Amino acid sequence: MPNLKTVISLCLSFALWSGISNAAVVSPPNWWVGMESSELQLMVYEPNIAHSKVSTDYPGVTIKKVSSLDSPNYLFIDLVIEDAAAGQLTLEFIKEGHTVTTVEYELASRRKNSAQRQGFSSKDAIYLLTPDRFANGDTRNDNVQGYTERLDRTTPGGRHGGDVQGIIDHLDYLKEMGFTQIWTMPLLENAMDSYSYHGYAITDYYQLDPRYGTNELYKTLSAKARDKGIGVIMDMVLNHIGSSHSWMTDAPSKDWIHNRGEFTPTTHQRESLHDPHGVKEDQQAFSDGWFVPSMPDLNQQNRFLATYLIQNAIWWVEYADLSGIRVDTYSYSDRAFLSEWTRRLMQEYPDFNIVGEEWSTNPLITSYWQRGTNRYDDYKSYLPSVMDFPLQAQIAPALKEKESWETGLKSLYDILTSDFIYGDPYNLVVFADNHDMSRIFTQLDESQALWDMAMTYVLTTRGIPQIFYGTEILMGNAGTEDHGIIRSDFPGGWKGDKVNAFTGEGLSDHQRQAQQRVRSLLHLRQNHPVVATGRLTHFAPVDGVYVYLRHQDDINEAVLVVINKQAKDINLKLKRFASHLAPFAIAKKLDSQQSRALENTLPVPANSATVWILQ
Amino acid sequence: MPNLKTVISLCLSFALWSGISNAAVVSPPNWWVGMESSELQLMVYEPNIAHSKVSTDYPGVTIKKVSSLDSPNYLFIDLVIEDAAAGQLTLEFIKEGHTVTTVEYELASRRKNSAQRQGFSSKDAIYLLTPDRFANGDTRNDNVQGYTERLDRTTPGGRHGGDVQGIIDHLDYLKEMGFTQIWTMPLLENAMDSYSYHGYAITDYYQLDPRYGTNELYKTLSAKARDKGIGVIMDMVLNHIGSSHSWMTDAPSKDWIHNRGEFTPTTHQRESLHDPHGVKEDQQAFSDGWFVPSMPDLNQQNRFLATYLIQNAIWWVEYADLSGIRVDTYSYSDRAFLSEWTRRLMQEYPDFNIVGEEWSTNPLITSYWQRGTNRYDDYKSYLPSVMDFPLQAQIAPALKEKESWETGLKSLYDILTSDFIYGDPYNLVVFADNHDMSRIFTQLDESQALWDMAMTYVLTTRGIPQIFYGTEILMGNAGTEDHGIIRSDFPGGWKGDKVNAFTGEGLSDHQRQAQQRVRSLLHLRQNHPVVATGRLTHFAPVDGVYVYLRHQDDINEAVLVVINKQAKDINLKLKRFASHLAPFAIAKKLDSQQSRALENTLPVPANSATVWILQ
Repeated sequence: MPNLKTVISLCLSFALWSGISNAAVVSPPNWWVGMESSELQLMVYEPNIAHSKVSTDYPGVTIKKVSSLDSPNYLFIDLVIEDAAAGQLTLEFIKEGHTVTTVEYELASRRKNSAQRQGFSSKDAIYLLTPDRFANGDTRNDNVQGYTERLDRTTPGGRHGGDVQGIIDHLDYLKEMGFTQIWTMPLLENAMDSYSYHGYAITDYYQLDPRYGTNELYKTLSAKARDKGIGVIMDMVLNHIGSSHSWMTDAPSKDWIHNRGEFTPTTHQRESLHDPHGVKEDQQAFSDGWFVPSMPDLNQQNRFLATYLIQNAIWWVEYADLSGIRVDTYSYSDRAFLSEWTRRLMQEYPDFNIVGEEWSTNPLITSYWQRGTNRYDDYKSYLPSVMDFPLQAQIAPALKEKESWETGLKSLYDILTSDFIYGDPYNLVVFADNHDMSRIFTQLDESQALWDMAMTYVLTTRGIPQIFYGTEILMGNAGTEDHGIIRSDFPGGWKGDKVNAFTGEGLSDHQRQAQQRVRSLLHLRQNHPVVATGRLTHFAPVDGVYVYLRHQDDINEAVLVVINKQAKDINLKLKRFASHLAPFAIAKKLDSQQSRALENTLPVPANSATVWILQ
Repeated sequence: MPNLKTVISLCLSFALWSGISNAAVVSPPNWWVGMESSELQLMVYEPNIAHSKVSTDYPGVTIKKVSSLDSPNYLFIDLVIEDAAAGQLTLEFIKEGHTVTTVEYELASRRKNSAQRQGFSSKDAIYLLTPDRFANGDTRNDNVQGYTERLDRTTPGGRHGGDVQGIIDHLDYLKEMGFTQIWTMPLLENAMDSYSYHGYAITDYYQLDPRYGTNELYKTLSAKARDKGIGVIMDMVLNHIGSSHSWMTDAPSKDWIHNRGEFTPTTHQRESLHDPHGVKEDQQAFSDGWFVPSMPDLNQQNRFLATYLIQNAIWWVEYADLSGIRVDTYSYSDRAFLSEWTRRLMQEYPDFNIVGEEWSTNPLITSYWQRGTNRYDDYKSYLPSVMDFPLQAQIAPALKEKESWETGLKSLYDILTSDFIYGDPYNLVVFADNHDMSRIFTQLDESQALWDMAMTYVLTTRGIPQIFYGTEILMGNAGTEDHGIIRSDFPGGWKGDKVNAFTGEGLSDHQRQAQQRVRSLLHLRQNHPVVATGRLTHFAPVDGVYVYLRHQDDINEAVLVVINKQAKDINLKLKRFASHLAPFAIAKKLDSQQSRALENTLPVPANSATVWILQ
């Protein structure tokens, strides 16, 4: 069951809506009329509510079925909502002839064009941030009564106080930089005794962690961001919960948690799902195993749990006006459930975007999940996007390796040549690093020249770019792989910070240059959309030089990128690219006043990534 | 044109057949009645033969078309052979009203069931050998008049004198070891001034290099091998010729050789063929470029050349009674040509086998060429098999790497989990090394324990195993990658050799053990065919132990393989495999008298690959 404070807060909400106080907790806490699907399954929690009869006389709403599972304290109500007006419906629960409780339930009106919302796309650039580590906008919520883990900035794995207000306070920075989407690591309640700042041990699927703020404040963040042209992407965790979740003491059914609630580690062998020579036992060991004892693994084969998770995701999209979802540890959930979960989301929001995390460097594995992929089996997936881990894994080695016909930039070229395997390579999320690995500046041995190549590449290749917060000021994690260090506090986010990356105060020249380079590349994407939405055409690297174009037949400009790993300035001969450059006469260099006729050669500095706007 | 000695030898042949002496060289030198395709295109070479008219009155044979290209010295005759009897037909060449020459051409009868020949399959084990380095059976052909390069055993890249007679002399060794197929590196004429022993610079597509023997002797090898249950696989080179080929001085057309006969290096970027972001220029640079100046690249887009190569391959299958073909540098040839070449071969011999060399470690690339693969485009391929380079590349790293959940044996497991990408993974050729890379014993830092794992794996996993000559006696190339050292002389193949691997004389105990292990695994394949033809079922590696089964529902025995990289003896718990072991009661260990009831555990020695026959 939800913990005490949740119950209290939800009861208060109900009291405010309805004037009636009752102890029942209903999930989802409200719904909307006019959804594509007319079905809604309420999970009602109240002691001994199981096996109640339920009735309502709300016009357009019928009760299709009422179900109880193993616990005496849960009741599931299947409603059909057809041609109903917005308003509050009353559900009466009767047991042995007596009304045991009454629930007022809101059916709200939808935001205009909610179903037609546009998901994040290659027109965007995503800023991934760790809410606890970006900015502390409200010190009053640094510690919250009832939550064991308290503020501790001296410990890398402790809570540092960052919050939703901190993000709201710095939306102008993100807008000015040129980011158009924010992906926050999970903000939902993690009422764990320790190590809770990361957010992936959810203990309440319907409430923000109060140390980050309230649901209302999250909605405010989304609205204010939208006003600035920035979308909000929610990080959702379908695979597991935190071990302090009330389901661990009172689950609706015995099969709610894999392995009957006992820790059994996953094998992480995702390949077993695809293996024509494999055994069912290995698939189960992967899917049903847990990450760690503090993260019990959900059994989404239970269709009540599956429905709970599906409706929860739709609820957040509708409630907080989201522009997208990132799904954590995607393939670890039940395969059939993922098909249904994505189908339902995309049925409600056909132009939405969802990106799954499948951390494999093999495109055969990652592509399996993307919508439209020509699969080897009859699996149906409605997932529009996956994280491009195969590409990510090549970036640092490709830039650091010595060049030869089979090493170096060839790895970046090769990985794109496999794009035929994907349903839609232009809708993959591309990134140089994220919150779960060494920062790219550290991966590149703190070479700013290579960092510049990596940023230029991520922000100009095909797909939807994602930048990890702090990358723009060369944040690193030299000498350690500690996630708490990788996710260090963003300078300027805390009162008294001597360095302030928002204002530039105290940044080194290198950091300022770096920040300006990212800003410049992001503005390029906005001012010359062909780099974001045009076709990519690339040429096999030769002698440490990799050249590609973003262009489109019906757009009268193009963007040319030249990555030069040679230690000397070169004059790039253009003859090899001539048939593709033919429509253009002039090349303007990004970050420079240089503009020149597009003739036989282009001057390219040593160890550089240069971007040319062709007109 | 063919070089002088070829002309002389072919003229002598014609003279013997027909009693008429003429200078015309006809390719193919003969043909057969009763082929599936009724079409045959003769290439006739004789000075000023172009633009002749041609006639014949042979019953069942009609001349469909006569063509000339750029050279005045070639004529192409398209014949249709329908319901013709075997015999000799006379072709009369007329120019300006005069008979300029007459050619007697043989239409032979086919060998019985030639069309139904069975190609090599997973029932087989292939022995790959370098003819110049296996055994010198006839010292009289060590040097041959007219051929510049002479015997030089002191130079790694020189000719060492091995020949076809040497292979014939040692067929009993191969049979007794348990090999059932021989793949010889190319035996056709390489009349190059130097570095010709490897055979890949062909100067006559219709004649064995006389330093290896005659066409007749090759046919004898095939017949004698077949008598011992051994098939012969020919190594064919479609992509390029040797620069001493007569076509380099007198080609039928100007476009016969890519880049008009001038050396332009290939980029080796085979990925460009598949690249959705790529350009035609990169595909051409790959396909049309040459390997080295001494190997001019053939333009198979010329349909006369394409037909020449197709007929040449069919001719050798029919003439020498082949059981298969290995195609060198497969993807470097024209893609459409490869489709047609394989279609024609498989049309004539539906149960034949052909394996293409596509040296990529990416299954997305190698699988593209295999028949039956679910491709991203509408390309048609009729190629039954490809070399499994992706698997080969994992063997040494998987065995040498430290074990963890993401390294070591997991690489071997992973590569098989991708098998869904192939049209038929059971028809891939698997190998630990070949003639173009470091020997497996060297790759494994001369660890015999790891070598044992590699051999056990290659000879028991899915596919058609191939062993490189000398691997069975731990031949290595420590400290060098020189191909001449990798392809060292097989001990015992030369008179006076102090070590004789055929008799065992002078071998070390380690070598004898190794040879016995390979023999034992090969005999296992013959005595327990389920290991060769049964399904493979494997289990994700755990703690450095990888377990797999070869089994088949309708076969009452199975083979269990356990690769244990732990440095200690273990008792393998069988519970995890129980549902798959259920049909069997007894486990007999290969190379041991050990036989035990199949119960809770199996004893497995440290650092070992053990094979158990389950009954």
